Amino acid sequence: MTKKEKYAIGVDLGGTNVKVGIVSQKGKIIKKVSVETKADGGPVKVIKQIQEGINEVLSKNDLYIHGIGIGSPGTVSTKKGTVEDPPNLPGWGKVNLGKIIKKKFKIDVKVENDANAAAIGEMIFGAGKPHESFVMVTLGTGVGGGIIYNRKLFRGEFGAAGEIGHISIDLNGNKCKCGSFGCVETYLGNSYLVKRVQTELVKHKSSKIWQLINNDLDFLTPIIIQTALQQGDKYAKEIVKNLGWNLGVALASVGNCLDIGTFIIGGGVGGFGAPLLRSVEETISARVLKPLRKRIKVLPAKLKNDAGIKGASALVFYK
Amino acid sequence: MTKKEKYAIGVDLGGTNVKVGIVSQKGKIIKKVSVETKADGGPVKVIKQIQEGINEVLSKNDLYIHGIGIGSPGTVSTKKGTVEDPPNLPGWGKVNLGKIIKKKFKIDVKVENDANAAAIGEMIFGAGKPHESFVMVTLGTGVGGGIIYNRKLFRGEFGAAGEIGHISIDLNGNKCKCGSFGCVETYLGNSYLVKRVQTELVKHKSSKIWQLINNDLDFLTPIIIQTALQQGDKYAKEIVKNLGWNLGVALASVGNCLDIGTFIIGGGVGGFGAPLLRSVEETISARVLKPLRKRIKVLPAKLKNDAGIKGASALVFYK
Repeated sequence: MTKKEKYAIGVDLGGTNVKVGIVSQKGKIIKKVSVETKADGGPVKVIKQIQEGINEVLSKNDLYIHGIGIGSPGTVSTKKGTVEDPPNLPGWGKVNLGKIIKKKFKIDVKVENDANAAAIGEMIFGAGKPHESFVMVTLGTGVGGGIIYNRKLFRGEFGAAGEIGHISIDLNGNKCKCGSFGCVETYLGNSYLVKRVQTELVKHKSSKIWQLINNDLDFLTPIIIQTALQQGDKYAKEIVKNLGWNLGVALASVGNCLDIGTFIIGGGVGGFGAPLLRSVEETISARVLKPLRKRIKVLPAKLKNDAGIKGASALVFYK
Repeated sequence: MTKKEKYAIGVDLGGTNVKVGIVSQKGKIIKKVSVETKADGGPVKVIKQIQEGINEVLSKNDLYIHGIGIGSPGTVSTKKGTVEDPPNLPGWGKVNLGKIIKKKFKIDVKVENDANAAAIGEMIFGAGKPHESFVMVTLGTGVGGGIIYNRKLFRGEFGAAGEIGHISIDLNGNKCKCGSFGCVETYLGNSYLVKRVQTELVKHKSSKIWQLINNDLDFLTPIIIQTALQQGDKYAKEIVKNLGWNLGVALASVGNCLDIGTFIIGGGVGGFGAPLLRSVEETISARVLKPLRKRIKVLPAKLKNDAGIKGASALVFYK
C-alpha cells in the first residue's frame, strides 16, 4: 500500500451488469466484482445489488477509500445525486441514488451519467489525458457522449449535455426510440445495426457472416460482424465503413457547433477498431468547416473493458 | 452626457455595408454612419472605410470612448485580433484588423466573429438579458450562430464554435458552399431560399408572390416572401413553416448536444416573425430528448436593425 496513492470505489450501473471496483488514483483496478443486473426487480433490488457489490470489494480491504463514484444511465442530476428514468432499468422513475448510498456507507458519493463518467475517465486515465478538449462517444446499445472542454465536463443547463446519439443526420430518417427521426443512434446503436444487417444480408450471399451465424439470422450480433471484418469479409468492411460515415456526419456537425477537433470513440461497436475510426475521421475531415479540418483527430478510447468502473471512480478524483 | 454612462464604438463589418456607431453601455445608439462596403477593393480599401467611419462618428464627439468593438465575418482570433478569409470579402486572407485599428486610434480594440458579437449583444442589450444560457441564430445570407453558456460566450478551441448553419440535417442533402452536404444553411440561407422558391413557384400559380414580383422570378427576395406571408398567402405560409421545420431539426440536435433550451433567432429571415418562430419551437419540442422538451423556448432577437453595431460595441463592455 503506497501512502501517496488515493483510492475510490467505482460503480458501473448498467442494464446488463452491475460492476463495482476499487480503483487507484492512477487508474489501476485493485479488486472488482460484477453481477448480472436484476433489472426486473426495480430500483430496490438493483440498489441492493450495488450495496452488496460495494460491501464485497470492501471486505478485507485496508485501503482508505476517498469516495464512491457511480456512473448511471438515464438523466442524472449531479448536484442532487438523483437518477431519472434510466433506459433498460424499468420502474425507476426518479431515485436519489446518491443519498441512499451515502447514508449506507457514510462516505462521499458522486453520481454522474455513464457517458459523462466515461468521458471523465478517459480524460483522467485514458486517451483524453493529453487533450484540453475532446468529445467522447460511447458506442453500445445506444450511442452516448460526453463533452470535455478545457479539462472540464461541459454539462449544459441541467447536466444532460453531450447526447451525441441524438444528433439527427437525416430529418426524414428512421424513427428513434427518443421520438425523433434519423438520430445517429438509429444507425450505430446495437439493435438497429443488427436489424439492418439482418435485412441486408440476403443481398450478400457470399458474406462470411452467413457461416459465422450458421445461416441463422437470430445469431447475428455486432461481435459476429467484427469477426467477419477481421476475416476480411467484404460486406463487413462495407458495413463498418458506412457506420463510420454515419457517425462522421454527426460528429462533423458536433465539431462545427463546438469547435472541438478531437474525438475519442469507445464502447462495444468501437471494437470495429481502426477501420471504423478511419472512416469516421475521413468523414469528419471532409465535412467539417475548413479551419477545423486540419485539427480533426479520431482516437480509440483506452479504458476498454473496465471503462465503466474506472470512469465512475474518476468522479471522485475529478474536481 | 451622463457621468456614469460608458460609451463604445461598434463596427459592423459586413459584405454589403460597413456600419459604425457610438453606443452607450445601455445600448443606446448616439450616432451612426453606414456606407456600402467596397468589397472589391480588398482589405486596404475596406479598412480605410472602417477608419473613415470611426473618424466620422468621433467628429464633434465629446463623450469618452472606452473602446472599439468590431464584429467581422470569417474566422476571427479574438486573442490576436485577426480576421481570416471572411466570406463575401475577397482578397483578405489573414488580416490583423485589431492591431491596425488600435494603432490608428490608440484605443482598446476587440474583434469578434459577427455571429458571436450578435450573441453577446443579445445577452447584454437584448432578448438574452434574463437567460444564463442560450443559442443565438442569425439568419441572413448565411446562417450564423453563437453559444452563450452561463453568461459567457462558448468559443471552442479556437473561437469558431457556434457554427449552427453548418449542422447537417440530411447526410445526402444539397451541397453547401462549405463543402459539406445538407447543412441547415442550404435550407435557410437567403440565396438557397430564393433559388428554391424560384423553382417551386411554378407549382403555385395562385400564390400572391407572382403579383409581388410582377411575374418576374428575378425580383424574388426573402422580403417578397415575407410580404406575401403578411398578406396571408398560403404558399408563403407553407415555405415559412417548412423553413422553421428545417431549422428546428438542426436546433433539436444542438439542444441535445448542449443541453441548452433557449434559442434566440435574429437576422433578415427572422423577419418571417412569429410563424417562423412557432414552427421552429414546435419542431425542436417534438424532436429534442424528453427531459429537455419542457424547457424549449424560441425567442425573437431584440436588437433588430442595429444588431451589428450594438453587438460589436457590447464586446467592449463584455468581460
